[in-house]
Amino acid sequence: MTLVRETHSPQPKSSFDLSAYLADRVKKVEVALDSAVPITYPEKIYESMRYSLLAGGKRLRPILCLATCELVGGTVEMAMPTACALEMIHTMSLIHDDLPAMDNDDYRRGKLTNHKVYGDDIAILAGDGLLAYAFEIVADRTQNVPPQQVLQVISRLGNAVGAAGLVGGQVVDLDSEGLSDVSEETLNFIHTHKTGALLEACVVCGALLAGATPDDLDRLSRYAQNIGLAFQIVDDILDITATQEQLGKTAGKDLQAKKVTYPSLWGIEESKRRAQHLVESAQAELAIFGEKAQPLLAIADFITNRTH
Amino acid sequence: MTLVRETHSPQPKSSFDLSAYLADRVKKVEVALDSAVPITYPEKIYESMRYSLLAGGKRLRPILCLATCELVGGTVEMAMPTACALEMIHTMSLIHDDLPAMDNDDYRRGKLTNHKVYGDDIAILAGDGLLAYAFEIVADRTQNVPPQQVLQVISRLGNAVGAAGLVGGQVVDLDSEGLSDVSEETLNFIHTHKTGALLEACVVCGALLAGATPDDLDRLSRYAQNIGLAFQIVDDILDITATQEQLGKTAGKDLQAKKVTYPSLWGIEESKRRAQHLVESAQAELAIFGEKAQPLLAIADFITNRTH
Repeated sequence: MTLVRETHSPQPKSSFDLSAYLADRVKKVEVALDSAVPITYPEKIYESMRYSLLAGGKRLRPILCLATCELVGGTVEMAMPTACALEMIHTMSLIHDDLPAMDNDDYRRGKLTNHKVYGDDIAILAGDGLLAYAFEIVADRTQNVPPQQVLQVISRLGNAVGAAGLVGGQVVDLDSEGLSDVSEETLNFIHTHKTGALLEACVVCGALLAGATPDDLDRLSRYAQNIGLAFQIVDDILDITATQEQLGKTAGKDLQAKKVTYPSLWGIEESKRRAQHLVESAQAELAIFGEKAQPLLAIADFITNRTH
Repeated sequence: MTLVRETHSPQPKSSFDLSAYLADRVKKVEVALDSAVPITYPEKIYESMRYSLLAGGKRLRPILCLATCELVGGTVEMAMPTACALEMIHTMSLIHDDLPAMDNDDYRRGKLTNHKVYGDDIAILAGDGLLAYAFEIVADRTQNVPPQQVLQVISRLGNAVGAAGLVGGQVVDLDSEGLSDVSEETLNFIHTHKTGALLEACVVCGALLAGATPDDLDRLSRYAQNIGLAFQIVDDILDITATQEQLGKTAGKDLQAKKVTYPSLWGIEESKRRAQHLVESAQAELAIFGEKAQPLLAIADFITNRTH
């Protein structure tokens, strides 16, 4: 499914090859993640963490972090520990969300979920281990960045994953389960926290590492908030229109659970329009950065054009 | 039960009133913890985190952190965010350990466990939230400490709670469940990781915040390792000899589960002797600090003399 075939972003992007860019970045991130978690005694917990951490996926979060750091004048090397941490945090949230006590999912990224392979106990601990490791790696391995900026990144990561972010969004999501009268306001809260907070942290942390100005941080925050919400709307649409094979996870789950989603509030066509509008607003925030913003502009388009 | 009635520590402690000291510190820590986690929307997750975080307990970990920071020349204020973080991490580990998928405990500190009150899903998320918040609070609220030292503290905290520490110890503990041939080596691994790593982090982080020398860090690490193991041996003894009322949690669980413990390997009397020896070794490490070490010396005694 292509949600939007033509894009209307403020910069010409004809010269920019997003596929090649993403392939290169995915490769770098995979190498860094692989070496970040070597296997040692007790092997089972490292294998369990690696099973989910290295299970593929788009690596959108680390790539956003690296791209933003470069956009503001930093390097890939400066941001790589934080990029890995963001993927570890994301993976932790997936492992814990999939548990029987939570969403009870058997498949993720086309593979059995962590607890189906390692058991609920190890899956809980693997999530805890990845979360702890995320902070350790940022504190320990970030180089050529003033320590005060690294502390800002750690504070931001903690805020994005905790009760003020991802965890809070998940709580409201669980509370809304089975309710057919969830308001748009509540739905927005769920998604700006459950998905949006971490996506925003990717962009903001990348920018913080490079020493971005407050104005640039604000612009990039708005970019991230807009693509975050667009991302979720597209997710909801794909849950209806895509196949399980395309998604790598159970499709049609929202409908089956009679879950309130953006398409259920607005219909599919209006949802597509709003997602596209959000992407354009996100891209408009980047006008000031000129050519350098090509990766982030293209990633914004990619979010609405993706099929999984 | 008093394990050891007389102590033989290298410093005279007659002038030091441990009860008053602990009472004062507990009060300060309780105030800091209470104000660290205010309730906001979605209330349920904050209430759940607060339910376990403010459920009393000895507050041994934060007190160790504050005491070590002062010993090395720092202040209570410098160490308080880290002290709170250590209690949050400890509480997270208790909430997750108590889950049905793990140790399946119904009572903790004389109260129903978190998941018995809030459900397994919220308990998992409350643990995640506390863990994330621990790092955020250290990064965000530590004052009058060079940022590089705060980063060292964060790295150390992450290491102590992750697969190289607490999580790794818990994995081996789960693996050893129901086995009657667990070796002393494995038992040591479990406890130096499951309990010891965080206790060591308390002391080391307090010292790092105050800018301790490498030599002092080594001494304080050894102090912590020794009291950590003594603490666990005493825990095992109390599980046999104390009542549920004294412990505030199910007593006799180890025997019932036919778990290998120090008393099951060495017998109760020999276990007491070894705990006492460890405490004395711990205290010997502090000789160089003179009078200033009184709180840490007395805390070491307290560990073997406690009844719960």
